[in-house]
Amino acid sequence: MPGSTRPGGRTARTREAVREATLAEIAERGYDGLTVDGVAARAGVHRATVHRRWRNAAGLAADVLDLASGERWPVPDTGGIQGDLRELTSLVVTHFEDPHAGAVSRALVSAAVHDPVTARALHGFLAGRHRQAAPLVARAVERGELPEGTDGEEVVRAAVAPVYYRLFISGEAADAGTAERSADAALAAARSGVFVRGVRNSPDRSGS
Amino acid sequence: MPGSTRPGGRTARTREAVREATLAEIAERGYDGLTVDGVAARAGVHRATVHRRWRNAAGLAADVLDLASGERWPVPDTGGIQGDLRELTSLVVTHFEDPHAGAVSRALVSAAVHDPVTARALHGFLAGRHRQAAPLVARAVERGELPEGTDGEEVVRAAVAPVYYRLFISGEAADAGTAERSADAALAAARSGVFVRGVRNSPDRSGS
Repeated sequence: MPGSTRPGGRTARTREAVREATLAEIAERGYDGLTVDGVAARAGVHRATVHRRWRNAAGLAADVLDLASGERWPVPDTGGIQGDLRELTSLVVTHFEDPHAGAVSRALVSAAVHDPVTARALHGFLAGRHRQAAPLVARAVERGELPEGTDGEEVVRAAVAPVYYRLFISGEAADAGTAERSADAALAAARSGVFVRGVRNSPDRSGS
Repeated sequence: MPGSTRPGGRTARTREAVREATLAEIAERGYDGLTVDGVAARAGVHRATVHRRWRNAAGLAADVLDLASGERWPVPDTGGIQGDLRELTSLVVTHFEDPHAGAVSRALVSAAVHDPVTARALHGFLAGRHRQAAPLVARAVERGELPEGTDGEEVVRAAVAPVYYRLFISGEAADAGTAERSADAALAAARSGVFVRGVRNSPDRSGS
């Protein structure tokens, strides 16, 4: 199994080689062109080894996401919640604009919509991202910028959702303006108390 | 071509029969089980006719979306922007929860992520939905509930995006609470002026 020998050992090196080959194959051929044989050849790893450990394209894609989940994300820390949220949404937009990394991520998200193995890996990856980003909201609460009890993960979801909606659902452009507006919208909502845990708003609690 | 005879005529009846059969086939077999032959048999239409007019599964799915685009959407009109937005997001959540219609729509959205023909149809369908819903924001501006120049389509996108993000990207549940929070978040953002057209917010324009 991947990771069954000590970290940095032969298994870890094989897994890293397979990851790199998987990313390169997706970038070159798209997810639909991803095969165990293609990855084995590119990684210089025995075909039988890749078949046994990763099974198929979905297993390879899922492992890329699992490895990414284990890495720390450089969560913004600009000293203010507006700067942090704007940098966060900007990171997402510029990532998807990147001709190599962005294309790979688009392919993985698209694959996850159809394949349950890739989906589970993507959901775990994004849950990790929500958790890792939530402290920027906690810091804002400590600084008095947001109400006590604000749900950090909900703020992060609200900030990034319009970017994903445009890119993967409505097929509209997501640019720097989208990133800024999405961040500012999530911030305005958070300030108004919409994301305070356990609060069920009665109509027009927030005034008109 | 579909629609080439008078509305309500034989062509329109054939198109409607094919639409109904397409929806039923997707509900029963999923998008991956959708075939021209299956739809022709179920609709009682000649296989050659369906092949010629709709070509393949993607063409059938796209026509379902095109027909839906032409129908009026019962956009909420509760007399207040908070009620309207909450009803809008609630309509989206309950639609996707529906065992039949929701399953078909999930299949169509998933298909669009991969297939360019279905994607174009979905994008057109959603653009129409954004346009049709925008007047509820215009009415709120007229009532003095939202700032002059608020971009209605942006408010609608912001309200529905977290629902789609959960269902199709992060794989999280979207329930009545999600619908309410998403509506209230979009409303708070709209009230703060984030969605006023042509305004590029400087940092902390909206105060802390």
